[in-house]
Amino acid sequence: MVDADAFLQMGREVLAKQPFSVLLGAELMALESGRRELAVAIADALKQQMGFAHGGGVSYLADNALTYACGTAMQVPVVTSEYKINYARPAIDERLIAPARAVHVSRSQAVCRCELFALRGGEEKLCAIAQGTIAKLPDRNEAST
Amino acid sequence: MVDADAFLQMGREVLAKQPFSVLLGAELMALESGRRELAVAIADALKQQMGFAHGGGVSYLADNALTYACGTAMQVPVVTSEYKINYARPAIDERLIAPARAVHVSRSQAVCRCELFALRGGEEKLCAIAQGTIAKLPDRNEAST
Amino acid sequence: MVDADAFLQMGREVLAKQPFSVLLGAELMALESGRRELAVAIADALKQQMGFAHGGGVSYLADNALTYACGTAMQVPVVTSEYKINYARPAIDERLIAPARAVHVSRSQAVCRCELFALRGGEEKLCAIAQGTIAKLPDRNEAST
Amino acid sequence: MVDADAFLQMGREVLAKQPFSVLLGAELMALESGRRELAVAIADALKQQMGFAHGGGVSYLADNALTYACGTAMQVPVVTSEYKINYARPAIDERLIAPARAVHVSRSQAVCRCELFALRGGEEKLCAIAQGTIAKLPDRNEAST
Repeated sequence: MVDADAFLQMGREVLAKQPFSVLLGAELMALESGRRELAVAIADALKQQMGFAHGGGVSYLADNALTYACGTAMQVPVVTSEYKINYARPAIDERLIAPARAVHVSRSQAVCRCELFALRGGEEKLCAIAQGTIAKLPDRNEAST
Repeated sequence: MVDADAFLQMGREVLAKQPFSVLLGAELMALESGRRELAVAIADALKQQMGFAHGGGVSYLADNALTYACGTAMQVPVVTSEYKINYARPAIDERLIAPARAVHVSRSQAVCRCELFALRGGEEKLCAIAQGTIAKLPDRNEAST
Repeated sequence: MVDADAFLQMGREVLAKQPFSVLLGAELMALESGRRELAVAIADALKQQMGFAHGGGVSYLADNALTYACGTAMQVPVVTSEYKINYARPAIDERLIAPARAVHVSRSQAVCRCELFALRGGEEKLCAIAQGTIAKLPDRNEAST
Repeated sequence: MVDADAFLQMGREVLAKQPFSVLLGAELMALESGRRELAVAIADALKQQMGFAHGGGVSYLADNALTYACGTAMQVPVVTSEYKINYARPAIDERLIAPARAVHVSRSQAVCRCELFALRGGEEKLCAIAQGTIAKLPDRNEAST
């Protein structure tokens, strides 16, 4: 079991190795056991034709935040198995944050939940809600064919 | 009711106005009533730390393909209300395609389905499956507060 | 706006008019704005071949609890539009309870969440987690065809 | 590998051992590798207060049909891990059928899809669409705690 600071550092190193996360400018804000928060600035590049954050960018954040929450809880390499997301409100503000946590952890996977908030001037507005299964990376001989 | 070519053209114009879609290099491949196909090349920028397409990029494609399928079926401006995605296999190939179609259309929304295939050398491998609700854009006075 | 006791009474009357809920022995335990709890005893009739509560019975409870949470928050007749459920642990205990609440309410629908716990001797064990969209019943002229 | 008739027989024996399925009057209609169909008559006991099939009864059918589709494809004992369902139309007809199939099978689980149709006088109307993960029953030493 590593301490929280070391785990936060590991999480940031993984993020830095993901070209897609770097492209979107994702930042890992907090990381304690079973709970983490991922954030992105809603730069122009994340927008769709009406000036809102594109649903795909919101989904990216949900997917990744769920995965970090599980990885933090299980402390092993993990991948998203499945998730669902409900969009509640267009994200038209400055920054998206995605606090997530594991709500049930078994040996091979965790069920995680995430809320996504748009932030402007310190005010948070809920813009999406996600729930999904994050799985321990299978050993090579268990992999799907 | 516009013809298929005109609608394909409209779809491409919407895509071109989405900075996020442009960033990811998405292309609209085919568009007929209730069925469409969105594709992206799995460029380095879409990858995560193991060299696979990042789940967030796969999600972007699913979300957008579901939305285009509904927009094509309903021929009105639409937004993703919610969806779920199951990842079946890491996308390690050259290109992702996302054929999608509306399976049930009502006045205000459609339930749509999408499969995501990784393509290499003409061979398709299923890498994700999605299902969701795409809603007609609400009139201004119906909007969530 | 009716008071909480009157609303609880109304909720119980609706439940009593649902033959399926009567068949399963569902009880409405608490009902305040945006939060409610539905419960069933895990009678033999709810079980599957291994003696656990059948997933379909757990689903029934999740679906209904989400719907009551939305109805309580919106105070209008509602129907389930869609939901997803993750099973965390077989329900082998005496009683299932399903606290649920609306997490985002708009004019026409609410996004609700629910946890399902198996109870035995006062101890609660999480056995499923659900999230879904509950919609205001459409006016007749908006109905799906 | 057993033949289709023997497998159908096995499937019916499992169903007969599920008190909840017996209570609802479920019947196993067809069973071939990766595809099956479960059906229930919409008896009064399955209804809600407006005379439609209760969502919980529709969910039961979806959950069970997904599970049978996976069990048929994998030919091992399985349990539902998670699923999502979109309701398309109230089921007001005589009988519900739920054709389901596995769309991706790995060593430990399958992603399955199901459509639910209400039948009246030979006409089928789509009333719900489901997608979920069905998992091989874990060995005892892998079980969640």
